[in-house]
Amino acid sequence: MRVAVIGVGQTKMGEHWSKSLRDLSTEAGAMALKSAGLTATDVDGLFIGNMSAGRFVGQEHLGALAVDHAGMTPIPATRCEAACASGGLAFRKAYLSILSGHHKIVMVGGSEKMTDLGATGSVGTLMGAGDQEWESSIGLTFPGLYALMARAYMERYGLQRDELSLVPVKNHTHGIKNPYAQFRFPVSVQDVSRSPLVADPLRLLDCSPITDGAAAIILATEDIARRVDRPVWVAGSGQASDTLALHDRDDLCRLGASEKAAQMAYSQSGMKPEDIDVAEVHDCFSIAEIIAYEDLGFAKRGKGKQLLINKDTSMGGSIPTNTDGGLKVGHPVGATGIKQIIEITRQLRGEAPNQVKGAKIGLAHNVGGSGATALVHILRSD
Amino acid sequence: MRVAVIGVGQTKMGEHWSKSLRDLSTEAGAMALKSAGLTATDVDGLFIGNMSAGRFVGQEHLGALAVDHAGMTPIPATRCEAACASGGLAFRKAYLSILSGHHKIVMVGGSEKMTDLGATGSVGTLMGAGDQEWESSIGLTFPGLYALMARAYMERYGLQRDELSLVPVKNHTHGIKNPYAQFRFPVSVQDVSRSPLVADPLRLLDCSPITDGAAAIILATEDIARRVDRPVWVAGSGQASDTLALHDRDDLCRLGASEKAAQMAYSQSGMKPEDIDVAEVHDCFSIAEIIAYEDLGFAKRGKGKQLLINKDTSMGGSIPTNTDGGLKVGHPVGATGIKQIIEITRQLRGEAPNQVKGAKIGLAHNVGGSGATALVHILRSD
Repeated sequence: MRVAVIGVGQTKMGEHWSKSLRDLSTEAGAMALKSAGLTATDVDGLFIGNMSAGRFVGQEHLGALAVDHAGMTPIPATRCEAACASGGLAFRKAYLSILSGHHKIVMVGGSEKMTDLGATGSVGTLMGAGDQEWESSIGLTFPGLYALMARAYMERYGLQRDELSLVPVKNHTHGIKNPYAQFRFPVSVQDVSRSPLVADPLRLLDCSPITDGAAAIILATEDIARRVDRPVWVAGSGQASDTLALHDRDDLCRLGASEKAAQMAYSQSGMKPEDIDVAEVHDCFSIAEIIAYEDLGFAKRGKGKQLLINKDTSMGGSIPTNTDGGLKVGHPVGATGIKQIIEITRQLRGEAPNQVKGAKIGLAHNVGGSGATALVHILRSD
Repeated sequence: MRVAVIGVGQTKMGEHWSKSLRDLSTEAGAMALKSAGLTATDVDGLFIGNMSAGRFVGQEHLGALAVDHAGMTPIPATRCEAACASGGLAFRKAYLSILSGHHKIVMVGGSEKMTDLGATGSVGTLMGAGDQEWESSIGLTFPGLYALMARAYMERYGLQRDELSLVPVKNHTHGIKNPYAQFRFPVSVQDVSRSPLVADPLRLLDCSPITDGAAAIILATEDIARRVDRPVWVAGSGQASDTLALHDRDDLCRLGASEKAAQMAYSQSGMKPEDIDVAEVHDCFSIAEIIAYEDLGFAKRGKGKQLLINKDTSMGGSIPTNTDGGLKVGHPVGATGIKQIIEITRQLRGEAPNQVKGAKIGLAHNVGGSGATALVHILRSD
């Protein structure tokens, strides 16, 4: 059986002071339904990815929140959580639920309301994605964890500061055309290297922002998808795990979970890295995008920067990556994995603001924490 | 395709000051593996139900925590959350993941470490299961929500204080033989009515406790399950939702989500309420068990108390319920739904401490919040 994306919707990413978590979720869900030509009563299941609403806004039970406020009770509603990979995780569980034969049309959303807590509170809450007993407790933060990876990578492979900056420079350029982006301005290599130091070697413009936002997708069985215009098929789904704490890894310059999730998705879809026309990768910090190129097989170990130098991952390159600007221009953690698949869907439908000409096969890569969870999905237009 | 429970394990429920969340999860998981005659490398997926570790212990990303500490990386690990129904929810998603064809042997656990936060902190955290904007914000607590239901039910159906007390009296009696119970002492009707008032009409002995604990189950495909001794088959699975806030319901004396989840499980299994030999129902507060009898079809509306008066739901009755003592003798919220299915499994294997003679068909009923989520599973021994 095949399963397809038949509708998508998302809110603007940013600071939403006048909208609560439920408002954002419902806005995205309603857009997704409309884009699929469906109403709420057509849907028989709901999944939602959310990392930490319990701490961000004092609300757990996110499935019930979403399904209730959207007027979709009594359908089953399920919250999935794997830190910043919660969206990709919810997508995979929704996909498997259709394959199980128990569901036919499922809404899968992601949401996060992060700004209510302020910057300090958010950074502490986000450390819930790491190892509470061995990392948070000694004062590590996520910029700190990725800075350790960046430093190790720079030492081993000779990556330079200004080469690392090519990631945010590219993604900010892509983000300018994205109407949903939190940031829509260009940054230069010089801007990055002059931005405030957060955790050496990572600077402010290496880091994805604190963001409110929601995104939603409608998934359906093949017979239902055939009735809609331009369904986008799920060709491969991979999910893998790794140690929660960074210090337990053999190698700081790769994410084993990303490699294994990619292998699963490539194997199921019968695709190879060179078949991918467009990709969304998890650029929570600049270094993460370079490592992702290598984990996903787009570049050999230590050679990821060449894709940036040669502009292979820019618009017009051989594999444009983060064509919506990536996490760099908005990272509402629970929604991110869904937002990535929405951008791939738009690309494969030929309706992306930064359209990759003739894109037929796309990949979305979503990471939780410092790599303890990874999800990779491959989608195709036919 | 059929799916079976082939192994179970659980920790003692109580205050675990010397064990952390990961210790409890691993202990339960190791027991479940051993009982299935498997090792960690045989398992190809992990699901974990947990309500609020982000607030209870500062840790999200629970799938990665569990799979890492058990030495089971890189298999996919998924946390599911629906408040106190998180365990039942994780069980259903694990079941669907096997039906999807993407998994063959899955561990599904539940865990919660609640006591670190103390009683006041726990009560606030648990309100994450209700509606943050419309219930928590005005000071409602879970005893308060269930007290509203209890008062409405007592007024409409003439339920007396001493009749309501028959629920904890029965469950404490059952719990005495449960080696994993937090409380193993009898209480009398007089004890209940003399215990401190928490939220009128509910008293201390009407309420389930704050509990640390974990539980785990191994689920497998039919061909694998056939190789083990006494597999217990999943005959029906139901999940439904309702409004998050209690004040949005048409009727305070029933849980619509429980009714609908039960209909799904009965329909899939081809069973009727009278076919059930033994049941675990969600008795978070005394009134909840009486309403559950009616929602599940064990009694007509307003007649639930007759099952208690006639001792139908006690050991030796026609449908012994909460034979392990139920939530009343331990309610580690994320683990509860798993623990319930473990008790049903033990009953159907003939190895429960309070064994129901000849039990072949069992039902487990798990509720999230004040009824915004409900899961019902029907299991059978052949």
